[in-house]
Amino acid sequence: MPAVNLQCRLAARPVGVPAASCWEFVEAPGPELDDGQFRVQLEYLSLDPAMRGWMNDARSYAPPVAIGEVMRAGGIGRVVESRNPDFAVGDAVFGQFGVQRYAVSDGRGVLAVDTSVAPAQVHLSALGMTGLTAYFGLLDIGKPQPGDTVVVSGAAGAVGSVAGQIARIKGCRTVGIAGGPDKCAWLVEELGFDAAIDYKQGDLRAELRRHTPDGVNVYFDNVGGETLDEVLRRLARGARVVICGSISQYNAQEPPRGPANYMQLLVQRASMTGFLVFDYADRYPEAVAELAKWLSEGQLISREHVVHGGLDQFPEVFLRLFRGENTGKLILHVGGTS
Amino acid sequence: MPAVNLQCRLAARPVGVPAASCWEFVEAPGPELDDGQFRVQLEYLSLDPAMRGWMNDARSYAPPVAIGEVMRAGGIGRVVESRNPDFAVGDAVFGQFGVQRYAVSDGRGVLAVDTSVAPAQVHLSALGMTGLTAYFGLLDIGKPQPGDTVVVSGAAGAVGSVAGQIARIKGCRTVGIAGGPDKCAWLVEELGFDAAIDYKQGDLRAELRRHTPDGVNVYFDNVGGETLDEVLRRLARGARVVICGSISQYNAQEPPRGPANYMQLLVQRASMTGFLVFDYADRYPEAVAELAKWLSEGQLISREHVVHGGLDQFPEVFLRLFRGENTGKLILHVGGTS
Repeated sequence: MPAVNLQCRLAARPVGVPAASCWEFVEAPGPELDDGQFRVQLEYLSLDPAMRGWMNDARSYAPPVAIGEVMRAGGIGRVVESRNPDFAVGDAVFGQFGVQRYAVSDGRGVLAVDTSVAPAQVHLSALGMTGLTAYFGLLDIGKPQPGDTVVVSGAAGAVGSVAGQIARIKGCRTVGIAGGPDKCAWLVEELGFDAAIDYKQGDLRAELRRHTPDGVNVYFDNVGGETLDEVLRRLARGARVVICGSISQYNAQEPPRGPANYMQLLVQRASMTGFLVFDYADRYPEAVAELAKWLSEGQLISREHVVHGGLDQFPEVFLRLFRGENTGKLILHVGGTS
Repeated sequence: MPAVNLQCRLAARPVGVPAASCWEFVEAPGPELDDGQFRVQLEYLSLDPAMRGWMNDARSYAPPVAIGEVMRAGGIGRVVESRNPDFAVGDAVFGQFGVQRYAVSDGRGVLAVDTSVAPAQVHLSALGMTGLTAYFGLLDIGKPQPGDTVVVSGAAGAVGSVAGQIARIKGCRTVGIAGGPDKCAWLVEELGFDAAIDYKQGDLRAELRRHTPDGVNVYFDNVGGETLDEVLRRLARGARVVICGSISQYNAQEPPRGPANYMQLLVQRASMTGFLVFDYADRYPEAVAELAKWLSEGQLISREHVVHGGLDQFPEVFLRLFRGENTGKLILHVGGTS
């Protein structure tokens, strides 16, 4: 008899910031396994801004989470029961297991997690989708050259903090935009950014001018909104704008704010390009190897903001992303032993 | 003693649609020529939406026209006096001669015009900067592949009408967006577009859906505003948005409207890229040769909307661009004999 599962299901589409009433917790026995399936006990849930988009009933790169469906989320857990020869009881695995205590999987999209390389939570951070997103977005889309000025918004967030460090590793002048003095100090003092701009303090336009005297060659955007508009004003000739996210707009109740200064793309012969990490799946091993090397050399710092709490904390902890309360990768530890 | 010149100078920066008071006409003798200079009598003035941008005191790819300066404009004329061995009296030439009767030049940026290939005005249209803009923007930035769906806005305008025809020549499904039934009929019946959408009639969103069933692979945008936003909704995976202009916003008195749906670039792994034809100067000959071949074969139609009037008509005729009153290239014939 399978252990009782606890699931967090989407109960209603949010309007603006997701209210508690958007969620429904359901406790019920998990299903018996079929051949080829295995059961995972979740330990760490990945909390990502993109999850807010999956809650909307809108055309996107993935179908919306249906009302009544378990909320989609990446996570790491241990195999606790298996009828799949590739996954043994005790294995640590990553997958889109959802916000629940136990997930059943057939192995599709599930990756083995080597906790001898780094603790499990790092595999949700610099060695996981977060690091891969930063890696492919910055390098493949942003194409930074040594000496380039690279600006990253949401720079103290999960993806931004890795993207900025990769830019630094590649010999770029790296400027982060983040909210608050502590985050900014961390970027410069711990992560080696050349400068950090606290968008909550003072004049973003003037600070950008001061810290990007030669303009911006690569802008890695996680936030959209006013920040995107201000950086567009600073583009250098031939600049590349990488569209990774637009967290400032995810809870907007009006239509999102478009970048009013987009004609700077023409003025500067620049480009603005979106990407999705999933398109690079066949190159994950190459990227993980390089990220792991940088980590082991101390060139790359992975920071996780782990909240220890039960699965029932998910609705509240998720909102911290949108209040900018996390530094590094926001993770909800939901149990398990590692 | 040089003939008396008539100049149209910028008298004041416009607010919104340029009023008559933005202009000042000054009649005065032209200067004597120095060694290396020649004098051109203007015959055809090129009227371009981009000129509106040059009137603003804003950072752009070219410095603003200064108050009191002759309004910048491309034009074709005849050399009437020369102290430059490369330019003989009687030569037809193209250059940024400005809105004036006579211009003095040292030859920089001046191109010879071969009126045996096509009448002078065609060298301001499909064989001129207009055609070159369409050529490099569509082919180098848009990179259309045979079978792609290419959407062009401002499709009955100078650049748009050429861009759409090149897309058709390259084997693409070509959809034009234009204002009014006459323009739309011209696009389909004369220029061979597969479909044309009259944005003034009915539902742009529904019409786009109907005419781009497989989505949009290349969008060549001349207008910005709502049209850009609607086409972004229709992008296909990996689409290329070419930013050529945003005429709907040039007279806006509020900050321009940014594309609220720009996150479709992420959803569709698409790009939005600006360009300037001037960057392709070393490839003009190759492009003009190809455009001339298509013209001679009847594959490409160059249409000029020539207004016969004096130089003093400029302020009024210029505004027709923003009222969408031209079909094809708007040209002011200001005198001369050809």
